[in-house]
Amino acid sequence: MQDLDADQVTDAVIAQMAGTPDPRMREIMEAAVRHLHAFAREVRLTPDEWLKGIAFLTAVGQACSPVRQEFILLSDVLGLSRVVNVMHDAEGREAAGTETSLLGPFFREQAPEVALGESIARVSKGPEIMLYGRVLDAEGKGVAGAWVDLWQADADGLYDLQAHDPSVMDMRGRVRCDGQGNYRVRTLKPRGYSIPMEGPVGEFVRRQARHGFRPAHIHFLISAPGYRELVTALYLAEDEHVDSDTVFGVSKSLVVTAATGQPDAPVPGMPGIRYDFTLSREASDGGGRVGADPAKLMPAG
Amino acid sequence: MQDLDADQVTDAVIAQMAGTPDPRMREIMEAAVRHLHAFAREVRLTPDEWLKGIAFLTAVGQACSPVRQEFILLSDVLGLSRVVNVMHDAEGREAAGTETSLLGPFFREQAPEVALGESIARVSKGPEIMLYGRVLDAEGKGVAGAWVDLWQADADGLYDLQAHDPSVMDMRGRVRCDGQGNYRVRTLKPRGYSIPMEGPVGEFVRRQARHGFRPAHIHFLISAPGYRELVTALYLAEDEHVDSDTVFGVSKSLVVTAATGQPDAPVPGMPGIRYDFTLSREASDGGGRVGADPAKLMPAG
Repeated sequence: MQDLDADQVTDAVIAQMAGTPDPRMREIMEAAVRHLHAFAREVRLTPDEWLKGIAFLTAVGQACSPVRQEFILLSDVLGLSRVVNVMHDAEGREAAGTETSLLGPFFREQAPEVALGESIARVSKGPEIMLYGRVLDAEGKGVAGAWVDLWQADADGLYDLQAHDPSVMDMRGRVRCDGQGNYRVRTLKPRGYSIPMEGPVGEFVRRQARHGFRPAHIHFLISAPGYRELVTALYLAEDEHVDSDTVFGVSKSLVVTAATGQPDAPVPGMPGIRYDFTLSREASDGGGRVGADPAKLMPAG
Repeated sequence: MQDLDADQVTDAVIAQMAGTPDPRMREIMEAAVRHLHAFAREVRLTPDEWLKGIAFLTAVGQACSPVRQEFILLSDVLGLSRVVNVMHDAEGREAAGTETSLLGPFFREQAPEVALGESIARVSKGPEIMLYGRVLDAEGKGVAGAWVDLWQADADGLYDLQAHDPSVMDMRGRVRCDGQGNYRVRTLKPRGYSIPMEGPVGEFVRRQARHGFRPAHIHFLISAPGYRELVTALYLAEDEHVDSDTVFGVSKSLVVTAATGQPDAPVPGMPGIRYDFTLSREASDGGGRVGADPAKLMPAG
């Protein structure tokens, strides 16, 4: 006969889940239940607080749509995405490899291809910068023909999906490295921006007196046959929020400055960011991105 | 400069939430973040698994509606509702008080009043039983005029909201104790039932090879001025799932048997369940039910 106090119920739940056929699902759910119950006991969660939590999660789920993933946003502001990304990074990346960062919700497949040195700013206007450098392997050799996919907010802090109708692709593109692994591409200096603050996660962040901003950054997805896909971002050192990113995406090695007067600048006088990316060899796990197309996460029907 | 490994990110998140004006919200969220991160690190959660979790929570949120609360159901099958209820029970209940149980999703305000000894079965048919006994205070004295609100599934395992359109109130009612705290009310023997299995939580339970059943039971909400509202349920000992309730609601002291031949039976020959409920004095926290009307948990607009 069950007669479970607040401690014993944990074992009872785990016992009831013990027949889970998938051993990994069993392992994950056992740990989830232990931590969930330990949390509730530690804070002595009351029925009213539990109900507020239910209402909050319900609102987060209801805010999800084919163009918005509020649960990923929640994972981001709670630092969970960072934890998962860092662990994944540590397991698949070679010591010399570039650190990874979050994919975020604005990646789009089939961005327009641009030639070396061309600009990805097709509609938006603003101060121009040049991104250039090399894509290298772990031994420091250039990776010929590597693809550099990049996307970013414009000078107003908006992605194309926020500024225009979905048919417009702007501030994103794919450039192919030359035979020595060199890339160069012109763009606008991005502006930092706030996460969406009008939904339940925005309200949650506001109630924590957090600013809700991400520092200015440029996303990269770099790929070449035989190498691990690299999902990362470069962050502008000058941004006032570079030390307090609301979604904890910044790593020291990914912080850059747009400088003028560099001897190797492709366009003299234009501020340039020189950054060499280093790819790791392909891992057996086949990768995995911390992020996704919101439309693919909606339940069917 | 942030440069956070999978351990350090936890402190960084807590630091960013440290300015939360509401101290209780700060306390709860700090503990939530610590446990959430510890869980992810313990199981080495991969990006693919994280994404499956995001998709699952999204589906749970999207399944919520004004007549269905899938997140409460998830809390129930994970044992969290039991943990919260047991802690609440331990803080507000006097030693002699009747143990509490979950409110569940089928409570409705303004159930029809029935006279002592009348039946709450207005539409459904099935084998009848008599519920009777007393509502007592902690000293064993009858509580005159206490209200006994009860609701249950019918002989097919369906609540009125599942079997009929919402205008029908059946298998629920309110009966008022007499001057000595006696109550008696006729009803049908309830049948155990499965939780809703066609939604994401049902699929989750199925993937854990759990049966998904609750043992047959009758819900009670008992109230009287000056006493703590008692939310509880009685469970039928004969039900095959009385030891494996999918939502962990059963306590030993709440298991009963419908017996015939009891000398104090109000209707000789009719199987009867005699149960005395003991109320605790009103606590300063004003109570709080583990459960809610799904409509009240939907986001506005």
